[in-house]
Amino acid sequence: MATEAAADDVSDAPEAYDALLDRVRRWNTVGSAAGVLGWDQQVMMPEGGTPARSKQLSTLSSINHDMITDDETGELLDELEDEELTDERAAVVREVRREYERADAVPVDLVEEISETSSEALQAWERARADDDFERFAPHLEKHVELKRQYAEHIDPDRDPYEVLFEEFEPCLSMERTESILDELRETLVPMIDAIRESDATLAVDTFEGQFPAGDQEAVARDALDLVGYDFDRGRLDVSSHPFTSGNQFDCRITTRFDESDPLGAVGSTIHEYGHAQYTLGLPREHWATPLGDSRDLSVHESQSRLWENHVGRSRAFWELFLPAFTERFPETDDATVEDAYEAFNQVHEDNLIRVEADELTYHLHIVVRFEIERDLVRGDLDVADVPEAWNDKYEEYLGIRPDTDGDGCLQDIHWSHGNFGYFPTYSLGSVMAAQLFAAAEREIDDLDAKIAAGDFEDLQGWLGENVHRHGSRYETNELVKRATGEDFSADAFTDYVEEKYGELYGI
Amino acid sequence: MATEAAADDVSDAPEAYDALLDRVRRWNTVGSAAGVLGWDQQVMMPEGGTPARSKQLSTLSSINHDMITDDETGELLDELEDEELTDERAAVVREVRREYERADAVPVDLVEEISETSSEALQAWERARADDDFERFAPHLEKHVELKRQYAEHIDPDRDPYEVLFEEFEPCLSMERTESILDELRETLVPMIDAIRESDATLAVDTFEGQFPAGDQEAVARDALDLVGYDFDRGRLDVSSHPFTSGNQFDCRITTRFDESDPLGAVGSTIHEYGHAQYTLGLPREHWATPLGDSRDLSVHESQSRLWENHVGRSRAFWELFLPAFTERFPETDDATVEDAYEAFNQVHEDNLIRVEADELTYHLHIVVRFEIERDLVRGDLDVADVPEAWNDKYEEYLGIRPDTDGDGCLQDIHWSHGNFGYFPTYSLGSVMAAQLFAAAEREIDDLDAKIAAGDFEDLQGWLGENVHRHGSRYETNELVKRATGEDFSADAFTDYVEEKYGELYGI
Repeated sequence: MATEAAADDVSDAPEAYDALLDRVRRWNTVGSAAGVLGWDQQVMMPEGGTPARSKQLSTLSSINHDMITDDETGELLDELEDEELTDERAAVVREVRREYERADAVPVDLVEEISETSSEALQAWERARADDDFERFAPHLEKHVELKRQYAEHIDPDRDPYEVLFEEFEPCLSMERTESILDELRETLVPMIDAIRESDATLAVDTFEGQFPAGDQEAVARDALDLVGYDFDRGRLDVSSHPFTSGNQFDCRITTRFDESDPLGAVGSTIHEYGHAQYTLGLPREHWATPLGDSRDLSVHESQSRLWENHVGRSRAFWELFLPAFTERFPETDDATVEDAYEAFNQVHEDNLIRVEADELTYHLHIVVRFEIERDLVRGDLDVADVPEAWNDKYEEYLGIRPDTDGDGCLQDIHWSHGNFGYFPTYSLGSVMAAQLFAAAEREIDDLDAKIAAGDFEDLQGWLGENVHRHGSRYETNELVKRATGEDFSADAFTDYVEEKYGELYGI
Repeated sequence: MATEAAADDVSDAPEAYDALLDRVRRWNTVGSAAGVLGWDQQVMMPEGGTPARSKQLSTLSSINHDMITDDETGELLDELEDEELTDERAAVVREVRREYERADAVPVDLVEEISETSSEALQAWERARADDDFERFAPHLEKHVELKRQYAEHIDPDRDPYEVLFEEFEPCLSMERTESILDELRETLVPMIDAIRESDATLAVDTFEGQFPAGDQEAVARDALDLVGYDFDRGRLDVSSHPFTSGNQFDCRITTRFDESDPLGAVGSTIHEYGHAQYTLGLPREHWATPLGDSRDLSVHESQSRLWENHVGRSRAFWELFLPAFTERFPETDDATVEDAYEAFNQVHEDNLIRVEADELTYHLHIVVRFEIERDLVRGDLDVADVPEAWNDKYEEYLGIRPDTDGDGCLQDIHWSHGNFGYFPTYSLGSVMAAQLFAAAEREIDDLDAKIAAGDFEDLQGWLGENVHRHGSRYETNELVKRATGEDFSADAFTDYVEEKYGELYGI
């Protein structure tokens, strides 16, 4: 590490910059240590470990907060206001200032109250969902909305509180662009899904029906990771109840889960998490624990996972490569053709009510419903008591289906029990960005499809590394997209992609 | 945790005591977080993760050191000098003061120099051992001796530096008692091992010869843990290159390793680590992250592992219980009797040169050699260049064997490459203490042997919990032993135990 840290050329930077960077490295290192504890908690920790683990995590979080909000951080940032800085250093200062200002603006008591509310809300949500009883969850949601409005007010009392909360996850994407992208998704997808429902296309949906043992699915998942080039010397594959990716550019681990009746689920989820890991592993090592070595925000991270999951994993080319490995593990699927696999993996589930089981198209309408509801809640345009009806009405309007129960409706997701308002849109933004990035990569790489079919991912990896991974948080989101694709971030490429792909699949 | 923390009755303690305890909890919590990272590094981390992990660990260690040596710690301790404290609180202050004074006495630069020397020495030792080339390791050992003498001088310039270093591991055992115990071991064991070498007893040593697949050995190890009552809701069993135990009273994990030609090795090692874990899991939860919820030092920890490994695991009674489970996993051993297993598990390897492969008897002579050499090195009574000869001479004198190479001699252990002088004796002290504690338990528990054979460990667990585990660091080591057994800590019970057991086994 010593050698790599020297690559910052700290010697010719202003003294205050070096001092700030030392502080930043220290708090980010503590944050990354907490990340290991979080991974362990979800993957390895025995149940009894919870009391100590909670305390370890809250202590590290409080140490982190103290280091960020220490007066010296503010003083160094102020000193650097008057300094001429290289672009790279100016980017670091911009990111650190943003983090400092948000952390400094919100009283610790409020952060703790939100954290306690989350613990209670989580328990209430679990029971409410099991009993299909929204009333039980409503007061907790009410409290979260109230506390999070206070939170936003501390940061900026003059702006739309939802926008302020959204910036927790997407600090450099405007609400205007976000709303316009989500509006375009709704306008494109609502009629498409209607048309698919009316279509008489018959896809090979029963190709992978049956029981597929978890052990064999794990072997298949490892085959897929080997084919796309996951570096097991810098990562692991484990099982957890919710798949996730965790780590840094030296050690980034993925998890997956296995549903014995749905082998494609684990394949998709594993490739998705691989995309996250590949981004993290591609961040510059010499900038670890600083903004230049940290990923841009959630939408960019999700763009990398969705690019691999949807644009690679759901392509005909990928199944030309992967089907032999799959049928070798599961000889009972020996008759399946590449076209069968492609159709099975791209079937639209137009009657599905559950977000996490949604396909590539309907997924975004699940997100639009949540986005509109949480935005209206935070803005005060919707009462908590009216959430179930608003939810069901929107599902009927956008997806043509209406949940019978709140368990299959507005209680299905965990996010609001954490008080995370503004998180959902990042999922769709990521998919949209994936389409835009992949279209640019296709323009610039000769025969990308043939290369995928041949298992030659070098050019694609190189393009993503060069245009996305190596920049860390150097550029703000729109600039990153613009430099990579030549265009502002928009839904155009996504719209073209789904119209062409699903037009052909369903003859619409 | 909130409820449990309240059990400290902080409300009636002096304000300075509560403030001190808050600080102590915070730094111990950071220390326990670092423990999770250490476990992960040895058990789960992919190789590439090292640079980030080293930085995470050194950052947490530096935060920890800053918190301990903060002026406020010293001020609070001074304030408490004049306060009347309950026995329990006085014990906490005693332990915290000791930790503070040692941490405060040694300059951070010296600690860092030792840490850097260790990294270099470790690499040199690995190469030296592989090439059987002591010269390559000698300058690093020389530097460690010099730095550790400085270290001891900072702590107390007026005392024997080896004693001061020993107190890093055994802060409350006197060197006088330690030397007298090790002398007694030497005096008892040298003639015993001679007699065993001359004995014509034929033990059933080939009972478990053959190949035993690692997967089946793991199943057997889990059987053993189930029989003795390891709580898998508060722990795990994994594999690592060196078996160890890590965790706290909520989550304490053990590791083991499998040698396919030696199934008893894994059984012994697993039960040994179980003893460590059982101690940790028995510490009072309400005192977690304070001295009352932390284990007494290395000798006491080792007494718990050795008690389970030697006095339970190597007994006839245990094999009455365990042999059926063992032969079920390994039907090829179906003919073995309890007596066969007992003899195979208690064979003395009088010609073995390697400490970690030693039996219950010769083990302590391996330790005595290391103790005498490191003590003389630190005291300046032995030159580094003379270590190989001194080593070989002592092996010849005490064990009647002489290593042909330094790789099988003074280069075999990792400890000195870390600069850990004073660590080795704690292994023998632990075994001796195990014998003393077990003898007391046998006196107080009716038919302990029959209970072990029946798999009823409740009384033994209860006795250990009551007399050792629940006290944490409340009593200093000798007081803990005296309260548990009615006698000062000595080698008497150990001597009785080995004379009786090995007298019978070898007819000596």
